[in-house]
Formats: sequence, structure tokens, C-alpha cells
Amino acid sequence: MAKDSYLVGLIGAGIGPSLSPALHHREADRQGLRYLYRLLDTDVLGVPPEAVGDLVRAARDLGFDGLNITHPCKQLVLPHLDALDPRAEALGAVNTVVFDGGRAVGHNTDVTGFAASFARGLPDARMERVVQLGAGGAGAAVAHAVLTLGAGRVTVVDALPDRAAALAASLQRHFGPDRAGTATADRLGASLRDADGLVHATPTGMAAHPGLPLPAESLRPGLWVAEVVYRPLETELVRAARAAGCAVLGGGGMAVFQAADAFRLFTGREPDSARMLADIEELAGVERSGSAAG
Amino acid sequence: MAKDSYLVGLIGAGIGPSLSPALHHREADRQGLRYLYRLLDTDVLGVPPEAVGDLVRAARDLGFDGLNITHPCKQLVLPHLDALDPRAEALGAVNTVVFDGGRAVGHNTDVTGFAASFARGLPDARMERVVQLGAGGAGAAVAHAVLTLGAGRVTVVDALPDRAAALAASLQRHFGPDRAGTATADRLGASLRDADGLVHATPTGMAAHPGLPLPAESLRPGLWVAEVVYRPLETELVRAARAAGCAVLGGGGMAVFQAADAFRLFTGREPDSARMLADIEELAGVERSGSAAG
Repeated sequence: MAKDSYLVGLIGAGIGPSLSPALHHREADRQGLRYLYRLLDTDVLGVPPEAVGDLVRAARDLGFDGLNITHPCKQLVLPHLDALDPRAEALGAVNTVVFDGGRAVGHNTDVTGFAASFARGLPDARMERVVQLGAGGAGAAVAHAVLTLGAGRVTVVDALPDRAAALAASLQRHFGPDRAGTATADRLGASLRDADGLVHATPTGMAAHPGLPLPAESLRPGLWVAEVVYRPLETELVRAARAAGCAVLGGGGMAVFQAADAFRLFTGREPDSARMLADIEELAGVERSGSAAG
Repeated sequence: MAKDSYLVGLIGAGIGPSLSPALHHREADRQGLRYLYRLLDTDVLGVPPEAVGDLVRAARDLGFDGLNITHPCKQLVLPHLDALDPRAEALGAVNTVVFDGGRAVGHNTDVTGFAASFARGLPDARMERVVQLGAGGAGAAVAHAVLTLGAGRVTVVDALPDRAAALAASLQRHFGPDRAGTATADRLGASLRDADGLVHATPTGMAAHPGLPLPAESLRPGLWVAEVVYRPLETELVRAARAAGCAVLGGGGMAVFQAADAFRLFTGREPDSARMLADIEELAGVERSGSAAG
């Protein structure tokens, strides 16, 4: 039986500016669905991130169909779920919860979303040697995605060497000892010299952290660059990489495809990701105008 | 600032067939609002009616804008609210909760809804002497409404004399000792002989309780009849009263105006009650077809 309405939400801290409600609402409206996507911001609610379990239970009891989960709750939510999708289990992080007959099942559409965006935007990319800068939560998800897509080896670089080592160890456990390694930040340029591509997964380039995450001299034709930051859609790295002749994948695609994958999990309906890509261009444009005016 | 979406619900037991979601959704759609009305059925959730307090708190925490409350929770909810509208306080029952900056404020739109329906449907009715059959929850609400509208005196009749006496005592406290009294069920016909109108507030006439709540011989031209039952819209009492030459007010109006009043409380927007009256005719028609087919 087709459901007649959908109630979903996003749990996280400081999520007021999220584009997820608009992305989901626009696609649902085009499909003629009654669909409500609500923000459940732990900062606004005045509860600690550890309250994510209580919020998940309350949402299940009140008939929510599903939830997205974001920073800093993606790991904290794990003990409160009844089951995990294999990708979420391998990653140890959940960004989507689907309520299925009272059971809360965890998924990770950051992984599937990055993979879909990459397959669409850089379909012919060589992936023998990939360097990834950033080993935080987003970095873990995209490294899993890159190896799932068939990358030969991912070299993880992070300003915190322990964090890089922990992610590389986890990748080795899941994909094999030859598939991941680390390099120190001072060896980034050297690692990039014989790499096929760079995945960027640090916050540098976001409005609050402007700048380039690496020297522009490291960028060269023949190196592809995949950006995870999507606010702004056009980061300094994206511009510099394009100027250097790199094939470039912006962060908007991952943002859209993770939302599209969550929409499919929540509704069982196929979203139109091409229309959602147009939406995020428009929404980010609106946002830029808003900032300029404000 | 206009809100961009509304999330509301109904808490009660066995509420699956409620028309409230459809009534609210249709009016919200006409106003171009993103509006979701969800059923929170304690039977379905497997919790006792006493859990209404937990459900109200969970709904507040998850960003619901308001709730309707129905049988058997209209009194049980009282200790869990932060404030009461004077009508709800006088009645001791709440059917609408509005969340206002974290505070839960109780209202009763059964009272205002019946009053609005009566004022619209029987605007010229004499109200010196009103007989009311039924002293349960709905009966208490409509008796308060009838006296608020200026009825001289309401005579309460119920199969349970103690329940009639308790309601009459409450009415006397709030409206004055001369404004309410009781009669035993065997004196109903005698009471009606010199009454201006009859308010019917027992379940008789609902699909599960077919029949007439009183002998058809008690009905006569010059007596108005106000029905509270609205499923079906046309009860045996409504048909018999019309055949006897009475001015008749069906139960659909109260159902619509209580929903319209709740919609106004939830959204701050004025609903179009004429369109909602057309909706309930259509929805009840659909329901009849459904039953006939099933």
C-alpha cells in the first residue's frame, strides 16, 4: 500500500542552515507527496548530542518514517539502532535511519551518495592511486566509497597523524592490507606527484574556513580532484583545480545524491537526481544572494 | 514570521477512521501550506491512555506545532499542560494543545466548534428551555457551548443519573444555579413538551449504535434538534426530526468547526469553514461508498 504522507527529520547540532529540508521538499512536491522534513537541532532543543537515542525513540513512537543523522551524532546513534546496513556497519557511522515496523535500521548514504556522484561526474577517472586529504567523519565515508568504487590504493593524509592511521587501519580491515596507507601532511605534495586523483575531505574552503587546503602548485593536468565541501558549491580548491587543468568534481553532487538515496530509503520512490542537482545550484544561489544582502 | 510548515497530530484510542487528517490537509492544501496531520493512536502504539503526557512531551520535543486530543485522553492530558484556555479550564477537558515556545497550552474547540455550528445552522433558535440528552464528554462540551450562547436553562438527561447530576452541578457552578438541572430518562418526553430545543449527545445513531435515542413521538414542529453524532452525517434522529417538522442541525457542523478552530490555533490563519463543510459532505460520502463496497 502506498503511504499517503511522509514525516522525516534531521538530528544534529547547529543544523539550522541545512539545505536538506528544501532538497527533500522540492523533490517530494514534484512527486505529489505530502512530505515534511523537520530539523531536530540538539543545540536548539538544549540537549547534548548523546540525547540522539532519546530523539530516535521519540521519533519512532510519534510515527516518523525516518531520520537523517549528522554531526556530531553519526556514531552516537549506533547503540540505539536495531539493525545496520552492511555499509553503515563497515563504516561505523549512520546518516540515515529508517523505521520499519517499529525497528530502527541504520544506513549510510554519505557512502552511496559520494559513490553515485563520483560515478556520474568522473566516470572515466583512473583510480590506481588516490590521495585523500582529511580523515574525519566525511573522510571515512568517502574513503569507503572510493575503495568500493574500485580504487587500487587510498593514501590518507590528515593534520592529525593518529586519525589518518586509524582510518587507514579501518580501510585495511575492510578492503585488504594493500588498499590503504598514510602519508604525513608534509609529504602531501610528493604523494600527489604520482597519484591519479585527490579527494578533499577537510572543512577548508567552507565559508567559516576559507582558503586552499594545499598549495596550488600540487595541482596539475591529469590529476582529478573530488571536493566534499559543498557550501559554497564553488570552493577555492574547485576553482584552483579547474584553473590547473584538473578534471573536477564539486561537493554538490555528494550532497544531492546522499539526499536522493535517503529519499529513496524513506519513500521507496525513485528521486530525480538531475532535478535535485538543479535544485542545489538554485538553493546555493539563493543562499549566496542572501549572504550578500545580509 | 510566517512558518513554512506545520506538523500536528491527534492523540486518542481507536482513532484510525478519524476524518481530521483529511479535513486539515484539504484546507491546508488550499492555503498552500506544507501541513502534516498524523494519528497517534494509543491502541496502535500499544500504550495506555495515561501515556498521553509522554506523547505530548515527545511531540513538543520533536517540533510538533500542536495536537488534537480525543477520547479517552481529554481529561488525562490536563496535568501535563502548562496553561489552559478559560473554556478548557471551565470544562475540565482539552481537545487541542498548542505548543508556544516550549509551553503546552490547552484549548477546547469542541465548545467553540459546537457554538459556531449552532450560530450558523440555527441562528434564530429560541433557547429559553433546552433539553440535552447525554452527559458524557461531548455532552459536557456542548452544554457549556449552549449556555455560553445564552440558553436560559439546560435540563440534562442521561441513562446514568449520577453523570447527569455531576454535569448539571458543574454547569450551575459556572453559569449560575438557575441555568441547569436534571431530569430522569423516563421524564424525557415530558421535559421536551415545553422545551424549545433538544441537544443530542449520546452515541446512539453512530454506525455501531444504530437507532433513535428517543421515541419519534417526542419530536414535533417548533422543537429544534441539534445532533452531535456526525458519522453518519445523517443519523436516524436527524431524519426523524426533519420528518417531524423540526429545525435540524446535523453533527457535521460541529466536527468541521472544531477542526477549523484547531486549524486557526495551530496556524494563526483563518480557515474557510464553508469549504470545509463541503469537504465533510464529500468525505462522508466517500466513506459511505467505501462501506457499501466493503
